[in-house]
Amino acid sequence: MAFDAYLNEHEERHLHDLNRLLEIPSISALSEHKEDVARAARWLCEYLESIGMEEAAVLPTAKHPVVCAEWLHRPGAPTVLIYGHYDVQPVDPIALWTSPPFAPAVRDGKLYARGSADDKGQVMVNLQALEALLQSEGGLPVNVKVLIEGEEEIGSPSLEPFINEHRGRVEADVVLISDTSMLADGLPTICCGLRGLCGLEVHVTTAATDLHSGIYGGAVANPTHVLASLLASMREGQGRILVPGFYDDVLEPSAQERAQIAALPGDEESLRRRLGVPALDGEPGYSAMERTSIRPTLEVNGMWGGFQGEGTKTVIPNEAHAKITCRLVPNQDPAVIAKAVAKHLHDACPPSARVEVEIGHSAYPWRCDPASTPIRAAIRSLESAFGTTPALARLGGSIPVVESFDRLLQVPCVLMGFAAPDANAHAPDESFPIETWRTARFASARFLHELAKGD
Amino acid sequence: MAFDAYLNEHEERHLHDLNRLLEIPSISALSEHKEDVARAARWLCEYLESIGMEEAAVLPTAKHPVVCAEWLHRPGAPTVLIYGHYDVQPVDPIALWTSPPFAPAVRDGKLYARGSADDKGQVMVNLQALEALLQSEGGLPVNVKVLIEGEEEIGSPSLEPFINEHRGRVEADVVLISDTSMLADGLPTICCGLRGLCGLEVHVTTAATDLHSGIYGGAVANPTHVLASLLASMREGQGRILVPGFYDDVLEPSAQERAQIAALPGDEESLRRRLGVPALDGEPGYSAMERTSIRPTLEVNGMWGGFQGEGTKTVIPNEAHAKITCRLVPNQDPAVIAKAVAKHLHDACPPSARVEVEIGHSAYPWRCDPASTPIRAAIRSLESAFGTTPALARLGGSIPVVESFDRLLQVPCVLMGFAAPDANAHAPDESFPIETWRTARFASARFLHELAKGD
Repeated sequence: MAFDAYLNEHEERHLHDLNRLLEIPSISALSEHKEDVARAARWLCEYLESIGMEEAAVLPTAKHPVVCAEWLHRPGAPTVLIYGHYDVQPVDPIALWTSPPFAPAVRDGKLYARGSADDKGQVMVNLQALEALLQSEGGLPVNVKVLIEGEEEIGSPSLEPFINEHRGRVEADVVLISDTSMLADGLPTICCGLRGLCGLEVHVTTAATDLHSGIYGGAVANPTHVLASLLASMREGQGRILVPGFYDDVLEPSAQERAQIAALPGDEESLRRRLGVPALDGEPGYSAMERTSIRPTLEVNGMWGGFQGEGTKTVIPNEAHAKITCRLVPNQDPAVIAKAVAKHLHDACPPSARVEVEIGHSAYPWRCDPASTPIRAAIRSLESAFGTTPALARLGGSIPVVESFDRLLQVPCVLMGFAAPDANAHAPDESFPIETWRTARFASARFLHELAKGD
Repeated sequence: MAFDAYLNEHEERHLHDLNRLLEIPSISALSEHKEDVARAARWLCEYLESIGMEEAAVLPTAKHPVVCAEWLHRPGAPTVLIYGHYDVQPVDPIALWTSPPFAPAVRDGKLYARGSADDKGQVMVNLQALEALLQSEGGLPVNVKVLIEGEEEIGSPSLEPFINEHRGRVEADVVLISDTSMLADGLPTICCGLRGLCGLEVHVTTAATDLHSGIYGGAVANPTHVLASLLASMREGQGRILVPGFYDDVLEPSAQERAQIAALPGDEESLRRRLGVPALDGEPGYSAMERTSIRPTLEVNGMWGGFQGEGTKTVIPNEAHAKITCRLVPNQDPAVIAKAVAKHLHDACPPSARVEVEIGHSAYPWRCDPASTPIRAAIRSLESAFGTTPALARLGGSIPVVESFDRLLQVPCVLMGFAAPDANAHAPDESFPIETWRTARFASARFLHELAKGD
């Protein structure tokens, strides 16, 4: 097709353009980079205008702006919203970078820079595909809206207000998000499920003040012990969660789904070695890949109580705390699970202590229909570009923006992600393989054609 | 006796002297008070000289000086070492003091000041008794050495080196320490046992780094859960310690001892209310008074792992820590108990985690013979001064200096303490009842006479 030749011909300049964007230190979390974030937004807006997208604009929010553009000249064809983010994570510890994070460098076929994988490299994959289609074919095969935000790395606080305020700029039939990883090098991957989340904070209190462990040791409950017992009571070994009702609504995987998961690349011994643990651990009866994707978890993210300084302080603390998050799978309801955990904690608390449970934020688990038209279009385009059948995988994390689009727009999201499994997103030496970047542009352009074709 | 009249006659001036000492902010922990600490030492040295004690000296140590003096003109009579400390705790939170901590004030018959109970008030009780004897009787009934240190509130780091370097100034037949509390208002109390101590620090580690709870949640052990399970595995409910061998060497109390403890003042409901706990808790089969004095404990003094900040961080930590101290009773050996706890932790750790146990400092439990000559002398003198039979009680704390004297000098210690149960030592509004101070001086002078008499 015409865009193929265009992409080949403009590869060098496309890489040059990507490097210009990567050079802008658009760290959304650090206020001293506020102007850099704005500069990255302007750069993208100008780029979108230059390739023939229309209504390109840098739109303000409460914090960092959103870049929008559109091309809507295919009446009757579906409309795709392309989502991405142009902000990046901080770079500390800077000393661990082999080359400076904002001076893109190529080594061993990889482009090293902060944002190369997460998400500037993937944003440019999709925008350069638009460029190729517009320039080589005089238009796009479907209607397209573009929304690139600048707050993803700080939790997208402005995204939902923005969607609600600018529905005309975002409403679409399908959302394309390229912000996830491939399961293995060279294996294109569609993420077709994400786990949900519910967070709780547990506070155990006993006496009015810390007590001297000599004078009172033996007379009163120690809240750190009480908390330890409460936490221990929620798990059988390191495995199954013992909170009553925890598994009631979990969709058990079908034999077919389990077979598909078993066929995905990656073995447990290399995972064990990579993580540096003496042994893997988790719910009995499920593989590590299943436990991290289609099974729910209950994890303590932090716990504390009493004296943490150097040396010894012979104190009986009067409070102890834990932060817990559960990862949820279809059809668990975060509110129901949070309540069940809270009830278990209250029921298990001895009369000599008090427990208080605060329920924090939550996200529903998300799952797409792998047989839907947009997913089938994504499969075909990835297959044609990469020359191999893409993996469809449910991932263990929670991506709040997916949940936001799903809830606010109620249209299917296609998560076609190109980051390498060892991309070091959020860490020093973040990288993006150049061959993947090159090929992904073809897949993205092809995806819009496949969407236009329908089933 | 002659000293009685003297003490009555000089009461007003004695209170005045005590106030002068209390006005000196001799906070040993704060370097900005170093000169105040030295000033308190000089004040005491001059006082000791003024009352007729000999060889009075301010002797330097690595940090704060020791004040010594002696009177050794009774050949054949026993020699008593009077120990005390002139340093005080910091005063924060200063806003909670009703009157300034270093401006002694009398309210409702109590003298309020930092150090009034711990330990300047009690030091002056004993020194004013020496004054009364020297001035009214021309000498002391026994030989006396005085050692008042300035580092008790920071753990007495220089005391053992000092004892070893100045054995001539400290060797004695009996040590008198007035630095403990009375069990109830007006009830003179001899402490005849202290619990020992062994400290441990537990480190649980798993992966090489913290892990994303979405990507890896379900695959690996969480060290906070492992630690919680390990801590929970050491106790049956809030009660009996399940570490194998923990109770093997514990001397079970005799029926007589239990009856004596049951006869001590204090009821559990008022203890519960005073501590502000919903219920007391501890080892089944023993009263709270027994559990805090003659039974060993295992307490977590602090535990921590993972994220403690505001909000949510969906992390699986890679390490978790706890500080543990056990309070020990005769005949438990701190080294044996520390080893047993460490072994239990190693045995209970799952293969998916690593546990490391550091054994910290320790103290042997201490117990005196309540039928010994010095204790019988103390009983008689307290009975005569206070008009009531003193309580003999084993206390739950550990006083390192007692253990030091016991080990280095191998002579009996008499712990005749006068602080009120609600003295607020180490807290705002520390106080010492004036009536107790007045009477205690008679008891202390009497004690030296009773010691001279022997059985």
